[in-house]
Amino acid sequence: MTRISLPPDRYFDPNPDQKRIAMELYLSVAEAPVVSPHGHVDPRLFADPDASFGTPADLLIIPDHYVFRMLYSQGVRLEDVGVPRVDGGLVEQDHRKIWQIFAENYHLFRGTPSGMWLNHELHDVFGVTEKLNGENAQAVYDHIAALLATPEYRPRALFKRFNIEVMCTTDTATDPLIHHQQIRESGWDGDIRPTFRPDAVVNILTEGWSENIENLSQVSSVDVHSYATFVQALENRRAFFKSMGAKATDHAALTPYTVELTPAEAEAIFVRALRGQATAEDETRFTAHMIVESARMSIEDGLVMQFHSGSYRNHNQLLFERFGWDKGADIPVASEFTRNMRPLLNRYGNDPRLTLILFTLDETTYSRELAPLAGHYPAIKLGPAWWFHDSLNGMMRYRRQICETAGLCNTVGFNDDTRAYPSIPARHDLSRRVDANWIAGMVVRGVVDMEDAREMIVDCAYRLAIKAYRLLTP
Amino acid sequence: MTRISLPPDRYFDPNPDQKRIAMELYLSVAEAPVVSPHGHVDPRLFADPDASFGTPADLLIIPDHYVFRMLYSQGVRLEDVGVPRVDGGLVEQDHRKIWQIFAENYHLFRGTPSGMWLNHELHDVFGVTEKLNGENAQAVYDHIAALLATPEYRPRALFKRFNIEVMCTTDTATDPLIHHQQIRESGWDGDIRPTFRPDAVVNILTEGWSENIENLSQVSSVDVHSYATFVQALENRRAFFKSMGAKATDHAALTPYTVELTPAEAEAIFVRALRGQATAEDETRFTAHMIVESARMSIEDGLVMQFHSGSYRNHNQLLFERFGWDKGADIPVASEFTRNMRPLLNRYGNDPRLTLILFTLDETTYSRELAPLAGHYPAIKLGPAWWFHDSLNGMMRYRRQICETAGLCNTVGFNDDTRAYPSIPARHDLSRRVDANWIAGMVVRGVVDMEDAREMIVDCAYRLAIKAYRLLTP
Amino acid sequence: MTRISLPPDRYFDPNPDQKRIAMELYLSVAEAPVVSPHGHVDPRLFADPDASFGTPADLLIIPDHYVFRMLYSQGVRLEDVGVPRVDGGLVEQDHRKIWQIFAENYHLFRGTPSGMWLNHELHDVFGVTEKLNGENAQAVYDHIAALLATPEYRPRALFKRFNIEVMCTTDTATDPLIHHQQIRESGWDGDIRPTFRPDAVVNILTEGWSENIENLSQVSSVDVHSYATFVQALENRRAFFKSMGAKATDHAALTPYTVELTPAEAEAIFVRALRGQATAEDETRFTAHMIVESARMSIEDGLVMQFHSGSYRNHNQLLFERFGWDKGADIPVASEFTRNMRPLLNRYGNDPRLTLILFTLDETTYSRELAPLAGHYPAIKLGPAWWFHDSLNGMMRYRRQICETAGLCNTVGFNDDTRAYPSIPARHDLSRRVDANWIAGMVVRGVVDMEDAREMIVDCAYRLAIKAYRLLTP
Repeated sequence: MTRISLPPDRYFDPNPDQKRIAMELYLSVAEAPVVSPHGHVDPRLFADPDASFGTPADLLIIPDHYVFRMLYSQGVRLEDVGVPRVDGGLVEQDHRKIWQIFAENYHLFRGTPSGMWLNHELHDVFGVTEKLNGENAQAVYDHIAALLATPEYRPRALFKRFNIEVMCTTDTATDPLIHHQQIRESGWDGDIRPTFRPDAVVNILTEGWSENIENLSQVSSVDVHSYATFVQALENRRAFFKSMGAKATDHAALTPYTVELTPAEAEAIFVRALRGQATAEDETRFTAHMIVESARMSIEDGLVMQFHSGSYRNHNQLLFERFGWDKGADIPVASEFTRNMRPLLNRYGNDPRLTLILFTLDETTYSRELAPLAGHYPAIKLGPAWWFHDSLNGMMRYRRQICETAGLCNTVGFNDDTRAYPSIPARHDLSRRVDANWIAGMVVRGVVDMEDAREMIVDCAYRLAIKAYRLLTP
Repeated sequence: MTRISLPPDRYFDPNPDQKRIAMELYLSVAEAPVVSPHGHVDPRLFADPDASFGTPADLLIIPDHYVFRMLYSQGVRLEDVGVPRVDGGLVEQDHRKIWQIFAENYHLFRGTPSGMWLNHELHDVFGVTEKLNGENAQAVYDHIAALLATPEYRPRALFKRFNIEVMCTTDTATDPLIHHQQIRESGWDGDIRPTFRPDAVVNILTEGWSENIENLSQVSSVDVHSYATFVQALENRRAFFKSMGAKATDHAALTPYTVELTPAEAEAIFVRALRGQATAEDETRFTAHMIVESARMSIEDGLVMQFHSGSYRNHNQLLFERFGWDKGADIPVASEFTRNMRPLLNRYGNDPRLTLILFTLDETTYSRELAPLAGHYPAIKLGPAWWFHDSLNGMMRYRRQICETAGLCNTVGFNDDTRAYPSIPARHDLSRRVDANWIAGMVVRGVVDMEDAREMIVDCAYRLAIKAYRLLTP
Repeated sequence: MTRISLPPDRYFDPNPDQKRIAMELYLSVAEAPVVSPHGHVDPRLFADPDASFGTPADLLIIPDHYVFRMLYSQGVRLEDVGVPRVDGGLVEQDHRKIWQIFAENYHLFRGTPSGMWLNHELHDVFGVTEKLNGENAQAVYDHIAALLATPEYRPRALFKRFNIEVMCTTDTATDPLIHHQQIRESGWDGDIRPTFRPDAVVNILTEGWSENIENLSQVSSVDVHSYATFVQALENRRAFFKSMGAKATDHAALTPYTVELTPAEAEAIFVRALRGQATAEDETRFTAHMIVESARMSIEDGLVMQFHSGSYRNHNQLLFERFGWDKGADIPVASEFTRNMRPLLNRYGNDPRLTLILFTLDETTYSRELAPLAGHYPAIKLGPAWWFHDSLNGMMRYRRQICETAGLCNTVGFNDDTRAYPSIPARHDLSRRVDANWIAGMVVRGVVDMEDAREMIVDCAYRLAIKAYRLLTP
């Protein structure tokens, strides 16, 4: 039997001086409340006080594309780990078998962020002490399944145990936010807020766009038949989201291209889209325009704007047809911000009322484009290391390549960005350790003194997120 | 006199804990057999039991573009270090003079991988203890020349001394593999295998392509007069290579572009090529198509597929005209895999029978494209840090930027990729030290425990190469 | 009160062995003369023996876009820190208020190169011992203002105190070099040399180009009415600059594109430009051609050629209109050297008489393109980490990504590249510490021995710059 290895000073550099300082800094924020301003946890979990997570496989494997993509890369069929098919076709139903496959392949996660998070979750959330493997798989399954049946493992109970101060979900523009409404009405005091994500109505070639627009008309009570009414409906929805506690919007595009169309061109494209005649070029330009237009709305209604770009979604056509979206087959592409963002920045980049948080999957833009942009434009802030780069080494690269030029002040703290609710403490803990170690590295090199270091770690773990996402106001 | 500095704990981080663990891990594989699945050693060296390496300059300078490009960059003429001219023009014949130039410029290699390899070779292979310089140049020359005259320094003897378990050469599609045949027939038990490299018949604008196609007809006994017969001839040659022990193919292209042509288009381009009327666009598309077609063949015959892209060959026109190929003037270009590889991957990327090993000269693709692709598609594995990046820092960047997302399991161990036979132990040793130090760095940071670390180092040094190149089967 | 933290072993890795060796290496060059072959200090400062720096804000804030861009990114208006408006509009005149804003925001510079330089300047140049903040702002202002009024703080006096052996300024092609002339005639022995920068006459769409060409005619006494006379006038100016002590030229372009036009095409474009009819394409091609043509001139007159590319100048249109050039709104773009530089390199890259020093703002080109080019072509040398990358981590990345392939020998030492005269010692000191630490890191890893290390640090701090910029000859 081998125990899960989670030394208290993990993820710190081995130099004794740096490690001691990193530990001191880490401990100063280790128990700080979790601020989660961007994520994908299902609000339904909190709407019903008795909601449960299902089986260990339901919780840790079947919904987590970080986990099953790695199994898939080594030849495990997605059907065999219970990932549901689009056509409802047969997939493995025996969750003990799924868990067994996972456990037998646990070595694949050596040295990966998934491995670090899983070890932390198993140990700290579920009290598992043995390293998972094929032999102990069923015993560990039993252990977790038993805990999941207890009231202490209801989502709301864990919310308190995880010490989450505020959590923002991600919701489509047409979402009636029923679960958020139920949470509010239930009297439960967990602070859970929606985030306005309009991609499905903005990206005019998205599958099902016409229905999305119909939905938009319905929920906004604005008859969307033109670009002008479309904008009106969006503004209506933003106001509704805001009334439900939203602090931010979120936008995705393949590239960070921005452009300001004339009202006539925007109208012409929108009408073509309504007729089902929009071209790929139309979509590219319209999306780019709506990014600029969303910045205008943010200046007016005060919602913080997030912009994620650079992911080639559903790269694997066969897998997409069989299993749908978000199955670990989104692959990054090179991105360009300097020229692409200029139209937006020349229009709104100097406006201090705008907070535009940029995310990238192309690390080459850190030092070349993003840090110089954020170190100059008042409107720009930089989101944390995203997705594939939200890892021990990835976060170190982010800090080293961005903060010298942008300054720590132009970053926004940590996002867990996760569907995997029980991984939230692990993710924030890893981030706090990386930041503590980064700052300690500067202390032992005489770059900053301890007085500054103590401020910086609180900025990283708490204050920058609160400030950037305007979470202090109710 | 200064001794060559080769401390036993070299290349490890200086932290005592990390160094101790790195040493323990390194020692566990230091004597492991060398697996060399991709390289460019001339099989002729092993065909004749009495083959000799010539002079020290013949061995270490004249054929090694890593060495003479650095001299050239500092103003040494290639003629002066004996690099043969295409036109047979006069170049330095006095190998002692060549050696003297090399020795006087030995400081240029400070901190470079060539410097590390050369020190290792001189010391461990030839027992030279003094650091090379202008003063001791001739004495060192004498010493090496004397050794090269002894039976212990025949290629076959060194093969045993180097503890090479298997070595794969690189051979054109039309190569009759006479030397491989001679090796097999000689009864000598060194395991040397050919690799099928069809670039010279696939890239239809290559100089001498028509003759190459004629050769292909001849050696395959398939009259190549159409695309269909071309494919047939290739399949014939692959079968022959396989019968001679080949386990893999190797393909090169400027970009990793892939596309599947219709049979009609493939035929049309091939016919234009036969008529000498192919365009640059034809070549690009045909090469991209043949990459996809080669994946199909690999699925059928089980040969592992290697794909190297991103080198702008013969960048220096003047040098190319005077000295030909492979003279240190190949310069990398930026590469794009996400979009370029999609046609191939959507066709064959989910097929577990395919192993497609990708190599890049563009390190920005490590974390952005290659690791996400390899961490998802069952067919994709990642080749080691290649060429300019096969260095102490380059290999560390590779590990740190790839393994968190792809997992160690989706990499293939080390390739020495060298023409410089006596540098093979040095190259594998450097790689093993870098990997040991990388893993030790994770141990002291609590990322993996020693149990995992001991497995990982054996994977890196031996098992992953054996598995990826399917070398266990005879 | 907190003291400014400047530990003697700052910027070194914390490992005791590495730190001890880094310190030994650093101390061997800490007092070496400063060689400053590329910078932007105003020669006027040295023409008048009684020139003064003005107020502390005049010296440290108002002209330094590194400083005020960071304040601007956090919402401080440039008017409020005294940055002059193009239209002469009102900006803050009270330099104590400007200083107060700066001091209250001093924490924004934590961990940035500006912060490191400022701490060094305040402490070592001005004897300030307290960390700057809102409370002590006015006392520190008084202290510095008093020093600036003394003869010891005249520019010439500091030149001696800073131990500057030679400093090169940057001067437009039409500059009559009056201040340089005055320096020479004054009998003062400070070695200050001009650098020939022809961008304003070469880039045919530059604002004011026609006037620049008229000026060129005037100062060269060559009537510039054609491409041929343009070249003649440039050659004339280069000869004049050379007679005034210039050792180098400097060229800037958005991309490193090079092309050789036919004389007819060059003439045609130039004539269109004279008529005010040049297109953007004309400018791109003409600039690219003039880069090649400048290499030809360098081969003939022996001036070292510097080429800086990759900066999108004046990205922020509003700011540009209000405040003009060099206001911290220049943002890097991705660059490509392999294909773009090939025309120039195929023409002149093998000529040992040419020294062409390349600078980049795209760190991805370090290992992919620049190191392989410099490690092959005799004409190419690599300028140091530039602008945003001239930082503790930036310089480490430069060394690690370039020197294994290019060799230290193909780099050119350090440039301070600064307008901020009193920051020169701080910048050279940081660079020397980074290099000492880099080399020490190789010593403790057994990559180089101390004998080599001692040579390498002198190369980095002094010899490479002297050699590359040909500063040994008078």
